[in-house]
Amino acid sequence: MENNTTTTTKWNFKENEKLVTALGLTVRSVLNNLTSCIDPADTRFVISLGHGDPSAFPCFRTTPIAEDAIADAIRSAKFNGYSSNVGILPARRAVAENLSQDLPYKLSPDDIYLTSGCGQAIEVILNALARPNANILLPTPGFPCYEAWAGFTQIEMRHFNLLPEKEWEVDLNEVESLADDNTVAMVIINPGNPCGNVYTEQHLNPVITLGSISKRWIVPGCRLGWLVTNDPNGILKEHGVIDSIAGYLNISSDPATFIQGAIPQILEKTKDDFFSKTVNMLREDADICCDRIKDIPCITCPSKPQGSMFAMVKLHLNLLEDIEDDLDFCTKLAKEESLIILPGVAVGLKNWLRITFACEPSYLEDGFQRLNAFYQRRAKKQ
Amino acid sequence: MENNTTTTTKWNFKENEKLVTALGLTVRSVLNNLTSCIDPADTRFVISLGHGDPSAFPCFRTTPIAEDAIADAIRSAKFNGYSSNVGILPARRAVAENLSQDLPYKLSPDDIYLTSGCGQAIEVILNALARPNANILLPTPGFPCYEAWAGFTQIEMRHFNLLPEKEWEVDLNEVESLADDNTVAMVIINPGNPCGNVYTEQHLNPVITLGSISKRWIVPGCRLGWLVTNDPNGILKEHGVIDSIAGYLNISSDPATFIQGAIPQILEKTKDDFFSKTVNMLREDADICCDRIKDIPCITCPSKPQGSMFAMVKLHLNLLEDIEDDLDFCTKLAKEESLIILPGVAVGLKNWLRITFACEPSYLEDGFQRLNAFYQRRAKKQ
Repeated sequence: MENNTTTTTKWNFKENEKLVTALGLTVRSVLNNLTSCIDPADTRFVISLGHGDPSAFPCFRTTPIAEDAIADAIRSAKFNGYSSNVGILPARRAVAENLSQDLPYKLSPDDIYLTSGCGQAIEVILNALARPNANILLPTPGFPCYEAWAGFTQIEMRHFNLLPEKEWEVDLNEVESLADDNTVAMVIINPGNPCGNVYTEQHLNPVITLGSISKRWIVPGCRLGWLVTNDPNGILKEHGVIDSIAGYLNISSDPATFIQGAIPQILEKTKDDFFSKTVNMLREDADICCDRIKDIPCITCPSKPQGSMFAMVKLHLNLLEDIEDDLDFCTKLAKEESLIILPGVAVGLKNWLRITFACEPSYLEDGFQRLNAFYQRRAKKQ
Repeated sequence: MENNTTTTTKWNFKENEKLVTALGLTVRSVLNNLTSCIDPADTRFVISLGHGDPSAFPCFRTTPIAEDAIADAIRSAKFNGYSSNVGILPARRAVAENLSQDLPYKLSPDDIYLTSGCGQAIEVILNALARPNANILLPTPGFPCYEAWAGFTQIEMRHFNLLPEKEWEVDLNEVESLADDNTVAMVIINPGNPCGNVYTEQHLNPVITLGSISKRWIVPGCRLGWLVTNDPNGILKEHGVIDSIAGYLNISSDPATFIQGAIPQILEKTKDDFFSKTVNMLREDADICCDRIKDIPCITCPSKPQGSMFAMVKLHLNLLEDIEDDLDFCTKLAKEESLIILPGVAVGLKNWLRITFACEPSYLEDGFQRLNAFYQRRAKKQ
C-alpha cells in the first residue's frame, strides 16, 4: 500500500483493434453522439425521431395480454431456471405455430432457435456462417448490425443497392454481378425493403428467417427473438449449418427463461384488434410525416413508408447554407433544436435521413416544427 | 415447382470450423448427451445432480421480493423500450452500491456494465481483451465457458492447477512460470476456488469482476449479470479496454430492460434472512453429501465445499469393473440408474466428478442411493 504508483508497471492488455475497426458506425453509437450534442441550456424537452422504439408513447403501449403473460410466468416460479441452448420447448412450439400461419408448410419446434432479440439472431447466424473467404450480400440502406457482425466475424461484405425510385426494390443486376462461389448468404430485410425475385424457388428453399416480438408487440426491451431454419430438404443440416447454430447457442446467452415461458400466452392470446390499432396509428403518423416533409424544401421522400416506422428522406444539401453532409445536419439540428434524427450514413446512405414517425401525433408535429425552423434559418439565400 | 431436386445445386455455406473446434466440451453439451442416454424404459424419475440450478426445488425458491420487483417493472410500462448498451442508470447505480459494501472504496455506476448473465460478461471481456499472441491463465478445474470463448476469440489458453490437497488453492509456482509479456488476464473464480496472493496489491488494482444475481437470488434464468471495472488509477481506460468493452456491448444483446428496472428493488429490499436460509439449506445439503460419499468407496472428497453448491470428488477407477474413465462412469450411471452427474472432464479434471448438492435433501438421498447401488454392481471383486 505504501508504493501506490503504477507508472513502472507494464500492463499487457490493450483494446481489441479488430473489434474497434469492425464496429464502425452503429445506430446506437451515432444516437449517443447526437444526444451528447444537445444544448443543456435549451429549456425545451428533447424530441427524438431517431430510434425505432415507440414503447415510451402511451398510444403505442403493448397489450395487457403481454404484461399479464410475463407477470404470470414470473409468479409461477416454473421459469426461474436455466433454459436449454435452443430455448424451452413450449415457447419454440408456439413460435413455430404462429409463423406457420403464413407459410405453405408447417414449421416444427426443432426449426426454432430462441434468441435474445433479433440482434442476437444476427450474431448467431453470422458466426455460424463465417469461414475463410466467405462473403455476404448486404442491402444499402440496411441495418448496421449486419455490418458490425460481418466485420467482426471477418466475412467479406458486398453491398447491393435498394432503389428509392422503385420503392426500394433490390437492384437485381447488381446482386447477380456480386454473387460468386464464396457467397454464403444474402440479407433481405422485409417489411421495409420489399424485394424482387432474385433466385429461383429452389434457391430460396433453404431460407433462414430472423424475427422477434419487439416491434409487433412494442416490447423491444423484452429481448425475445428467433432464428428459424426453413430446411425441408435438409440442406442446412447436411452442410453443418444447423450444428454451428446450436453450437454457438451453447456458449452464448439466452433470452430470460420466464419471458420464454410467457411466449405461448402472448402469441396465442393477442387479438387482431391490438395489431390493427397499431397499424392505424402508424398510418396516421406516416400521413403526418409525409405531409410535413412536403413543407420543407430541403428534404424529399421518394417512397411513402408502408410497412415500417421509418421514412427515408433525401437531403438536398444544395438548398442549405453551411451544412457539410447528413451527419453535420443532424449534429447541428441536435445542438440548435434539441431534435434528434438519424443521419442516413448510419444505415449506409450518405446525405439521407431516417425519420422515425412512430410516436404521439402531437410530438411528431412538434418535431417537424423544429425541423422546419432549422431549415428556415439554414436555407440558402437565392 | 416442377423441378424440385436440389442435387445439382451448389451451396456455398458450411459449418464454421473454428467454432466447432473452439466449443469442445461445454457443461451444457455434456449434460445434454448424458440426458439422451437415460433409459426410457426406466420408470423411476430422473435425478439430476449435474447442473448448478436449484431453482426447481421448493426449498430454493427465490424471494417474493424478486418476483414482486419484476412484476412491478413489467406493469409500470416504463421498461418496455431498448436499454442503453451499458444498462440503464438506476440498475447500474444499485449494483454499484450493493458491491461497494464489500470494497474499501466506492464504485460508480460508470464502473458497471450490465450483461445477460455472467456468461455474457465472460463473452464480453474475452472479446475485449483478444488480440494477436495474447494468452490468458485459466484454472483447472474451471468453468468451460472461459475455454470456449478463449478458443473462439483465439486467445491462447494456459492452465494452472488448483490443488485439491490444499483446499483448491492456486499453484502459485505454476502461475509464475506460465505468465509472460503476452498474458492479458488471469481468471480467479471465487467463491468455489479460493486462491492465494499471487500478485502484489498494485498488480491486483486493475481487476475486472464478473457476477450475477443468478445464484444468490436463485434466478439463473433471469439472465442478469454484470462486468465491473475496478479502475481507480485509470489503467484500463488508458489501455483502451474500457472502449473495447463498451464497443462490444454496442453490438451484443442486452439483458431484458424490465429485469434491469427491477434490480434496484431486488438488491435493496432483499433481507439477510433470505440469504441465511439459503446458506443453511446448502450447509445441510453439503453435510448429507459428504456423509454419503464416505459410504461409497470409489469416490472421495478431499475438501468439503464451503462456498458453492458443488462437491468435486475423486473417482477411483481401480475399485471399479469395466469403467474406462469419468465420462464412461457418468454415461453408464445415466443409462442404468437414471441419475445424472457431471464428469470432471467437463470442468477440466479427468476422472473426477462434480456433484451438485443444491436440492431437496430427500432428492439428494435418493440420488446417493442410486449411486451406491451402481457402485455395488460395478465394484471390482477383491
